Amino acid sequence: MNFLKKYTNWILVGIILVLAAILVGVLIFMKNQPLQERAFQPVVEIAALEPDSEQWGLNFPNQYSTFLLTGTNDTDTEYGGSSRFSHLERDPRQVILFMGYPFSKEYNDDRGHEFALEDVNAIRRNNETTHATCYSCKSSNNPALWDELGLEGYDEMLFSEMAPNITETIGCVNCHEAGTLRLVLTNPTTIAAFEAQGIDWTTFTRQQMRTVVCANCHVEYYMVGEKKILTFPWENGTRIDQIIAYYDEIEFSDWIYPGTDTPTLKAQHPEFEFFTAGSTHYNAGVACADCHMPYTRDGAMKFSSHNIHSPLLRPEAACGQCHTDVEYVVGRVNEIQDQVFTAKQATEDAIIDAIHALTLATANPAADAALLGEARQMHRTAQFMWDFVSAENSMGFHNPEYALSILAEATNLARQAQMKAAQSVNDMSLLGTNYYYTLDPIPTPVP
Amino acid sequence: MNFLKKYTNWILVGIILVLAAILVGVLIFMKNQPLQERAFQPVVEIAALEPDSEQWGLNFPNQYSTFLLTGTNDTDTEYGGSSRFSHLERDPRQVILFMGYPFSKEYNDDRGHEFALEDVNAIRRNNETTHATCYSCKSSNNPALWDELGLEGYDEMLFSEMAPNITETIGCVNCHEAGTLRLVLTNPTTIAAFEAQGIDWTTFTRQQMRTVVCANCHVEYYMVGEKKILTFPWENGTRIDQIIAYYDEIEFSDWIYPGTDTPTLKAQHPEFEFFTAGSTHYNAGVACADCHMPYTRDGAMKFSSHNIHSPLLRPEAACGQCHTDVEYVVGRVNEIQDQVFTAKQATEDAIIDAIHALTLATANPAADAALLGEARQMHRTAQFMWDFVSAENSMGFHNPEYALSILAEATNLARQAQMKAAQSVNDMSLLGTNYYYTLDPIPTPVP
Repeated sequence: MNFLKKYTNWILVGIILVLAAILVGVLIFMKNQPLQERAFQPVVEIAALEPDSEQWGLNFPNQYSTFLLTGTNDTDTEYGGSSRFSHLERDPRQVILFMGYPFSKEYNDDRGHEFALEDVNAIRRNNETTHATCYSCKSSNNPALWDELGLEGYDEMLFSEMAPNITETIGCVNCHEAGTLRLVLTNPTTIAAFEAQGIDWTTFTRQQMRTVVCANCHVEYYMVGEKKILTFPWENGTRIDQIIAYYDEIEFSDWIYPGTDTPTLKAQHPEFEFFTAGSTHYNAGVACADCHMPYTRDGAMKFSSHNIHSPLLRPEAACGQCHTDVEYVVGRVNEIQDQVFTAKQATEDAIIDAIHALTLATANPAADAALLGEARQMHRTAQFMWDFVSAENSMGFHNPEYALSILAEATNLARQAQMKAAQSVNDMSLLGTNYYYTLDPIPTPVP
Repeated sequence: MNFLKKYTNWILVGIILVLAAILVGVLIFMKNQPLQERAFQPVVEIAALEPDSEQWGLNFPNQYSTFLLTGTNDTDTEYGGSSRFSHLERDPRQVILFMGYPFSKEYNDDRGHEFALEDVNAIRRNNETTHATCYSCKSSNNPALWDELGLEGYDEMLFSEMAPNITETIGCVNCHEAGTLRLVLTNPTTIAAFEAQGIDWTTFTRQQMRTVVCANCHVEYYMVGEKKILTFPWENGTRIDQIIAYYDEIEFSDWIYPGTDTPTLKAQHPEFEFFTAGSTHYNAGVACADCHMPYTRDGAMKFSSHNIHSPLLRPEAACGQCHTDVEYVVGRVNEIQDQVFTAKQATEDAIIDAIHALTLATANPAADAALLGEARQMHRTAQFMWDFVSAENSMGFHNPEYALSILAEATNLARQAQMKAAQSVNDMSLLGTNYYYTLDPIPTPVP
């Protein structure tokens, strides 16, 4: 006890020094923590609607350099991915299903955003009558051009006329406001489509915008009139039955199917409508960007990766943000996609049987017009439902139960179309099934 | 500093007292923590295969008293629950779908386990030819009776002969071993069905057994031969295509559908096969008991609630074991069940159209026998697929994608059956759809 008494002062000093050292350590640790929001000092000033992403990249090097990676990615997943593979070669049924429409000649998978401009310019479906509308989702020049020309002025131009103005692929300004970097809708059609439903997009939260900005492009659309005005069929809502009702009300069709005379619809890439229709991830508050642009680190800096691609290419980063059991989760994705793929193929076979029957019935002048009309309406609906799932880029995973429900109904309608067609000409031979498997040779795209 | 020097001893004593108090507090806290496994002192000794659950309850009052609650539960969920409602009244399509089979006269939902014996004795489908086999899943007398009589000796007896031996409803001994309380298979048919697949059930982990014991009863089964030997159709595996292949190979049918002459199958309650076929919960390692018998507390004691019922009746306890967002999760369950219900109803309508066509074709002596045979085979398969989902007690939730995939295929097959039937008699009028909606009056069960 004498020892303690003698050195009490030194012990107290020691305790003080230890506490001070711990405090300094904690402060150093805190300083090195990644910050969600960091006070931002711009290197250069970005003009409003600046199309050149390289300029933006000076202020945001991590976002920009990861975005450039979308131009190097060339890896496929089981059902999609980042290469430009031909859907028609993978599944020749689609050569039949899009007969009479350019998609039956060329239908390639999309590559990364950095390739958007190069790939749209290389599409052989384009010709001298193609409108500028087809650049709507392909370039960061667009926000300034829309501002200058208006939607109508832009869309009424020809693709070839517009080409000299389109120097940049998709870029920062398609989703961000210069200066504030906040997420914004820039496509006037998307803004109008929300407005038509009474929705003011500026009321969305940031987390909602991390899904909504994708609706600048990843949606179902069609082109109105001679001027080919880009329009979304959302007036009734964005569920598939509401979209079908809209197209039926305005009696729109993309093309008349040759032989069956069906006024047919081509679905585009309705990822937004599909994902937001009550999917488990959407209902849980997950945004597109959570999986396709997962948070990543550069040293102590945390940011959204702008190397947008299939989460299956880097599931630890994508799924691992929320799921601890990534291997299990990827197994689930694979299982779900296999199930949707199987159901989708059965729907295609049923529609092809219906098309075969309808073609023979249509060729028969004695056919009952009313029954034939009913059959065509069913063919039209079944084909759009199938295409809504097929053209949507997730093989059903964005909303599995929705995908399977839609395919079940489409198959049912296709079979009923086939029956009506047979009834219209009183010809039992039209009820044959699995017509696709009797084809020799299997159809190939004829450019 | 003088003060410190003077009282150093007292300060040290104070620190020691504080530490001692903390230690005592921690020990008291640990003592009050619920124990997963608690050294067990039996109050009474339970004889092997003791049928009287009240005896077991003396040693396990929490488990027994919650089990008794299955006899008071009378609450329904949207699509199921605990009351004895009539499936035929809720969905009169099933009166047609089970025509010629007793289920078209009486098909009530199941109540809790405590009601099992009372309810099986009250089934009006039973008659003087009913075998004891129908008691197989209804009584804790069974393990001892199987031990004494053997499976064959048990099943060959008549229901009425066996009745005096069956004094107890389902109880502890149906799933537990006396003394060790470990989970065991007691139904000799379940044991044989695993063995036929080369599976030794004693190698299952405890968590696996928390699903496997449910396969004592919650499975698809049929009865073999004059002796009505309880048998599971699992020799090829437990997936629906494997079960259908098995029934086709042995050319089994439950009844011949009147009018269509289809050798038809009645699905029972294949919860085990349905849940374990790659469902998200099963693949994640979740057992039946995790949701249907969630851990609960009695003071500091933690135990599995034996008040087995729909998790929707107490989602905080059931889903809340793993999910923090119970309200969201219940919303998902509702949405999935609504989707499956819609798809299931479409399948029923398609099968009824097929039955209608097949009935008219079968009545026509000029019908092409080969085509008629194909149509019947398709009707048989479609109906079993539909029933596999319909009779399974979860409105698809146990495995949503599996349910919707099966229903999509069943609808497709039903439509093809209808087409073959029309072809067999060259009669276009058989291709009408939505026959059910033309019925006036809507069919009612005729006892």
